[in-house]
Amino acid sequence: MLSDHVDGLALVDHHVHGAVKGPLDRTGFEQLITESDRPVPPWMSTFDSQLGLAIRRYCAPLLGLPAHASADDYLAARAHADVNSLFLRAAGVSDYLVDTGYLGDAVTGVDELAKLSGSRAHEVVRLEAELEYVSTQESDVAAVPDALVRRLEERTGGAIGLKSIVAYRYGFDFDPAEPSSADVLTALDRWYSSGAGRVADPVLLRWLLWTGARRGLPLQLHVGFGDTELQLHRADPALLTEWLRLVEPLGTQVVLLHCYPFHRNAAYLAHVFPHVHLDLGLTTMYVGARAAAVLAEGLELAPFAKLLYSSDAWGPAELHFLGAALWRRAVSSVLDGFVAQGDWSADDAVRVATLWGRENAVRLYGLDQR
Amino acid sequence: MLSDHVDGLALVDHHVHGAVKGPLDRTGFEQLITESDRPVPPWMSTFDSQLGLAIRRYCAPLLGLPAHASADDYLAARAHADVNSLFLRAAGVSDYLVDTGYLGDAVTGVDELAKLSGSRAHEVVRLEAELEYVSTQESDVAAVPDALVRRLEERTGGAIGLKSIVAYRYGFDFDPAEPSSADVLTALDRWYSSGAGRVADPVLLRWLLWTGARRGLPLQLHVGFGDTELQLHRADPALLTEWLRLVEPLGTQVVLLHCYPFHRNAAYLAHVFPHVHLDLGLTTMYVGARAAAVLAEGLELAPFAKLLYSSDAWGPAELHFLGAALWRRAVSSVLDGFVAQGDWSADDAVRVATLWGRENAVRLYGLDQR
Amino acid sequence: MLSDHVDGLALVDHHVHGAVKGPLDRTGFEQLITESDRPVPPWMSTFDSQLGLAIRRYCAPLLGLPAHASADDYLAARAHADVNSLFLRAAGVSDYLVDTGYLGDAVTGVDELAKLSGSRAHEVVRLEAELEYVSTQESDVAAVPDALVRRLEERTGGAIGLKSIVAYRYGFDFDPAEPSSADVLTALDRWYSSGAGRVADPVLLRWLLWTGARRGLPLQLHVGFGDTELQLHRADPALLTEWLRLVEPLGTQVVLLHCYPFHRNAAYLAHVFPHVHLDLGLTTMYVGARAAAVLAEGLELAPFAKLLYSSDAWGPAELHFLGAALWRRAVSSVLDGFVAQGDWSADDAVRVATLWGRENAVRLYGLDQR
Repeated sequence: MLSDHVDGLALVDHHVHGAVKGPLDRTGFEQLITESDRPVPPWMSTFDSQLGLAIRRYCAPLLGLPAHASADDYLAARAHADVNSLFLRAAGVSDYLVDTGYLGDAVTGVDELAKLSGSRAHEVVRLEAELEYVSTQESDVAAVPDALVRRLEERTGGAIGLKSIVAYRYGFDFDPAEPSSADVLTALDRWYSSGAGRVADPVLLRWLLWTGARRGLPLQLHVGFGDTELQLHRADPALLTEWLRLVEPLGTQVVLLHCYPFHRNAAYLAHVFPHVHLDLGLTTMYVGARAAAVLAEGLELAPFAKLLYSSDAWGPAELHFLGAALWRRAVSSVLDGFVAQGDWSADDAVRVATLWGRENAVRLYGLDQR
Repeated sequence: MLSDHVDGLALVDHHVHGAVKGPLDRTGFEQLITESDRPVPPWMSTFDSQLGLAIRRYCAPLLGLPAHASADDYLAARAHADVNSLFLRAAGVSDYLVDTGYLGDAVTGVDELAKLSGSRAHEVVRLEAELEYVSTQESDVAAVPDALVRRLEERTGGAIGLKSIVAYRYGFDFDPAEPSSADVLTALDRWYSSGAGRVADPVLLRWLLWTGARRGLPLQLHVGFGDTELQLHRADPALLTEWLRLVEPLGTQVVLLHCYPFHRNAAYLAHVFPHVHLDLGLTTMYVGARAAAVLAEGLELAPFAKLLYSSDAWGPAELHFLGAALWRRAVSSVLDGFVAQGDWSADDAVRVATLWGRENAVRLYGLDQR
Repeated sequence: MLSDHVDGLALVDHHVHGAVKGPLDRTGFEQLITESDRPVPPWMSTFDSQLGLAIRRYCAPLLGLPAHASADDYLAARAHADVNSLFLRAAGVSDYLVDTGYLGDAVTGVDELAKLSGSRAHEVVRLEAELEYVSTQESDVAAVPDALVRRLEERTGGAIGLKSIVAYRYGFDFDPAEPSSADVLTALDRWYSSGAGRVADPVLLRWLLWTGARRGLPLQLHVGFGDTELQLHRADPALLTEWLRLVEPLGTQVVLLHCYPFHRNAAYLAHVFPHVHLDLGLTTMYVGARAAAVLAEGLELAPFAKLLYSSDAWGPAELHFLGAALWRRAVSSVLDGFVAQGDWSADDAVRVATLWGRENAVRLYGLDQR
């Protein structure tokens, strides 16, 4: 049976972050189950969302509570459980690919995540964070380009991929061409003069993208919805088309992450460009009861060899588990539906679920050679 | 049972217009069940649409006809019925929030709507109409800004909200910053020189938006599809992101109306911005048999405390009824589905339907203090 | 029963290309069941897609194989069959409207398609191909405008429609106004100076559109996804709004082809503009098991008199058959669903399916007068 196979599949969570280290009160927990960075208004609760209901439905039983337990009961039980180990192990993930570039000190590192989960963990290096680090070490602007290359060489020695958040910092409507050295130096000068810090200059961001693409490792891009910082229409992956054409000869594989509500556009890009792949990670988790409906849309144009699984979890380990649990449920539901309506064979359904949840990532990231 | 609860729920229709006063012949009726302002071509009928079939299905029985009665039979029966009172009362709406700014003379006013329906009715003031009115009263351009503020003070004394149709008049791709007094005067000068009338100048439209936002009342914006006048891609609410950030400190609540086919984008904005709310009003009515599918998409990212019900009905009172009837059917279907697939509890389904159809609007508009 | 009626309906395939003439090896076949023009990477197969599974499911039985036969078995059986005649006749199409402008020499022409299929076939003339042809015949730039008009007069004498691929060559974000003669001559000069060949200049492309619109024949526009050449976000039909307004007085009917993932936008345009029609042709075929879900989205706002059927098949005759087979299955499923949920009558379902698959095209193209 398909759902038995999918439930037993050792997933590769190819884009994830650490789990939060300490306890969380209600305010702290509610703030971590929304993409908003604003305080939750007093007249609402973030539990009143698809993600909130999914936590009460799928996580509560792991804490010994009935499904749909109240938020208060849930948080009370959570406070007395070893939640990180519990949920990380329940996720059924063989390999976590960990983006360490977002508030890394607040959450478990790569090694700690491996230890808590009993899984393998590999690092994904965030490009913007590396340039920001270089700026704190190198006072001579002219030396930054070489310093960045050296830094990426060091950092990617053991890493498995790179990540860009240009969608957050600017948008995909940047000039797709590689910037000249002169343009980069001018932009670095401007950045240093304003005190460096957070990189948001489009010249620097696309220089980072090009520099990253030249490393050869798979390059992950945050696409579509996310936190309050972005402008959604500028995170449409279709805007990347010309840049994708320009980097195609480098041979680097590009991975579009999450993609909602542009997942059909992302699937189109994966359809026409051999080097483009996609997941619906963060999306699957946030849409909860609607995960099957959304995954099905991604399955319209995407070649089955291009689909990946991720949770994009950051913070409460419930999210590391829930990403996997909702993906398993949704994929089984969608593919079972295709079989039931007579369009797919049961064998194809098993095969495609396995590609999506595991085998495509093993191939793309060379996990069998680690 | 969920559908019993939803069917009995006294809805707040938080964005609606008046009902047409006199009889309607076939041509007149057909022209009011489409968003097109063009004459209906002789080779088609607007009854051949989801809305047309929904009228024949759900309105015909109230006139004593079988469901799916022909359009001719329907119109013949309609001519002999007291349709306004019949359909307005059948809608099960406790409070109508009435936008009086669109061809207000052709339809019932706020008080008459209250009388016909037996419900409470409150006024929503349309910003563009107020500036256009001021221009007919004030010949001195320099005096217009103060006159507008005074006019809005008068008009909003008893009103419950404000409305903007910048989506129709220009699009959301305007400069988000509040215009300077000098810029406003220049634009007013230009407008007066060309004879005033319909406001379409982007400086004036955003000045109206800012002036409206400073009043403190909930501010409704038409979003997404509507009549022939707009350019759909410029009515994408994601284009409002920077403006939403800029007005957030004012504390004014912003309501995105209808939103199709950008309802996922609207739901994202309601997810990340505390002051943003949405409905799928006009959408629900026009997509008819597809209403459940579309509402479900809106339920992916929207916090449940941010969802509102509206019909956006204008003209035939069938629409005031149908908005409510289709919403009830669709919400029951979607939430029952979530319960049936094991994702939501039945209690949560009842609670969320109540928030959506009534309680969120009561809180947002302070209806319990009226 | 609805599906019996739909299965027996003689379709008008109002936008299609020829069938490939010779045999196809695995590489050749795989390259023709994707919209990508890139070589298929060695680690994947284009059979691993919705279209690939649909071929194995729906075409295999026509070759005497079980449903879901392997790709290898399928291609082996195919090599020994008279596939063109087999699949073209199985499509159940009474009239093929054939766009001859894309690699016409590699596939069957209009007459040959008629002969192989036993159906009627009519020509659709591609505007860009005609201008490119004129440039090979006329060395005097100043004579090109007249030569183009003469050429279109000749070519459209027996033709049934015109086609534009401005979506591929530039995008819909062009200046909507008709270019002046002077602008056209300047652009022609520039084009001739660079050696003519492929037309991609936006002035020439919109001049072609306007010249085509002035011919009076229905004008088909490729919209939305397609091959690797386009930028998806620039193929959004909403970008055509102003151009549609400007050509509306000409009385020419405009047909938006395929439209994914902008089919809701296309349906909105067909809703508000009397001269706009749409199909979901290529889309239906590529999304395979998801065809019903996608067609249902198109059925939200589109007036039922505006819907057309096409396959957009080019190459393997499987596609000419599959477009029809998947459309029949999907339409039956969607409309049966509307009937089952109590929203539509069974009579309306039969009537709308007939409009969509046949009658609208008969009316639009005047097929009963041929």
